[in-house]
Formats: sequence, structure tokens, C-alpha cells
Amino acid sequence: MSGDLMDSCVFCKIIKGELKSQKVYEDDYVLAFLDINPIHKGHTLVVSKKHYDNIYEIPDDELKKVIVVVKKVAIAIKKMGADGINVVQNNDEAAGQRVFHIHFHVVPRYKGDRIKIDTIEDRTRYKDENEMREYADKIRRFLS
Amino acid sequence: MSGDLMDSCVFCKIIKGELKSQKVYEDDYVLAFLDINPIHKGHTLVVSKKHYDNIYEIPDDELKKVIVVVKKVAIAIKKMGADGINVVQNNDEAAGQRVFHIHFHVVPRYKGDRIKIDTIEDRTRYKDENEMREYADKIRRFLS
Repeated sequence: MSGDLMDSCVFCKIIKGELKSQKVYEDDYVLAFLDINPIHKGHTLVVSKKHYDNIYEIPDDELKKVIVVVKKVAIAIKKMGADGINVVQNNDEAAGQRVFHIHFHVVPRYKGDRIKIDTIEDRTRYKDENEMREYADKIRRFLS
Repeated sequence: MSGDLMDSCVFCKIIKGELKSQKVYEDDYVLAFLDINPIHKGHTLVVSKKHYDNIYEIPDDELKKVIVVVKKVAIAIKKMGADGINVVQNNDEAAGQRVFHIHFHVVPRYKGDRIKIDTIEDRTRYKDENEMREYADKIRRFLS
């Protein structure tokens, strides 16, 4: 990402203190702060302090630091009284990403709240075993 | 979790090879395999080989190994032609968890597919700055 684009990144501004946020956790590599437009109050965003657009770009070492904070925040929000927690991380506009600085949503959930993150009803099926094997083979090929 | 409950865990059975799966990736700690009931075909589940119910319970070291595989799989599925990727990890029934063995969903997304994972429209607002600060304070308290 070019310097110009990074200058306009909302999360970079929050990290630099140029925009206000309600911080929940901070260390040298990771910042956690409240989403201003939460699914439920307490909904927290966990970001790497260095700018990476998405999960494809963040180095493994920094991703590991981020996920450990995601876990910490999830446990804290659960203890506060949530009935469950969704961890959601969206990549690219097609997947609902709105700020192009990698972030994990940590979302408190309550019994019967009817929030549709898990989209149980929007599922499909493979035609048969063969089609399923073809997909697995294809992913494995792209992994190597 | 008791031994009895672990014996009935579907993902433990897949890991032990007692149930069939289309494997995408495997190492000593982590297994990735296709969801048999995918949001889109190629939808992959990434699990720790050791049984932990959720993100609250998995040790940091194993969580780090799992998230690095999540990243690898996300990149592979993107290269296969997805327009975007959602990473979703649900904890507790209230959050849509159905199998109580920690797993990350890696979900391919396509422009205009109308899958509602990001639930942009289901957002709320804090009453004011004070309420937001109170929530941040509370989470920080439970973090320590």
C-alpha cells in the first residue's frame, strides 16, 4: 500500500492518536478498541499497529500476536456477561471489509439475539463425493 | 471436557480418521478439511488436533499454529478465484457454535453473493461518549 493511502487509513489514525478511540488493550504490536457502530455494545476491534490490508499480507509473527489478544478480549467480554462470542475477520470488499487495515471483530452475543453471523440457513451442498474431493485437491494445490 | 464427551466429538473422530473428511492441510497440530455443508464450495474448517471446546480454552501456542494455517488456507482459496474471504470463529451456542471443538471457518465470498456474515445492517450505537468509555473500562477490568 502506498504512503498516501496509509495516510488516509482510519485505523492508522486511531493508532497514531490522530482520531479518538476507546482503547481496551494496547501493546507494542497490537491495539484493541471499541467499534463505534457495534453489533452489540462491547464489540471490539483488534488490529495490528503496523498497516497491512488483510490476512493475506500480515506476517505470521504479527498475526500470532494479534490472535492472542483476540483470545484475551474474547475471554474478558464473555466474563462481562455475554452468552457467546463471534470472532470475525473480513478480507476484501466482497467479504464485507470496509476498512482496509486488518482487524478482527470480537462480538458479544446473547441468547436469541437473532444476529446472523453464523448464517446457518445459507448453506449449500456438494453434488457428490467427487466434487468435494476436487475442491480439496484444488485448495491443496494452491497451498503449495 | 470429560473423556466421554470427547469420544463423541465429530471433529475428534475426523482427526482420528474414524470419520471421513476431505483434508486440505495437515500437520502435527492442525487439520484443515472441507465443511460438508458449505456457505460456498471450498469453505474450509481449520481445527487444532487436540480437543478444546473454544477460543477461551485453547492454549496460546496452539492457537498461533491454527491461525497461521487459517492464513495459508485463506490465501489459497483467494488464489482459486474467490473475491474475498471471511474468517469466522464461533464460541458457545448463543454465537452459533454447533460443534464444540474449536474451529475457524475460512469462507470464500463472491461479489454480490448476499451472504450475511458481516451484518452491516444490524448495528447499534452507544448513547454517548460516556457509555462508550464505561464499556471500554469494563472490558479492560476483565482483561486484567
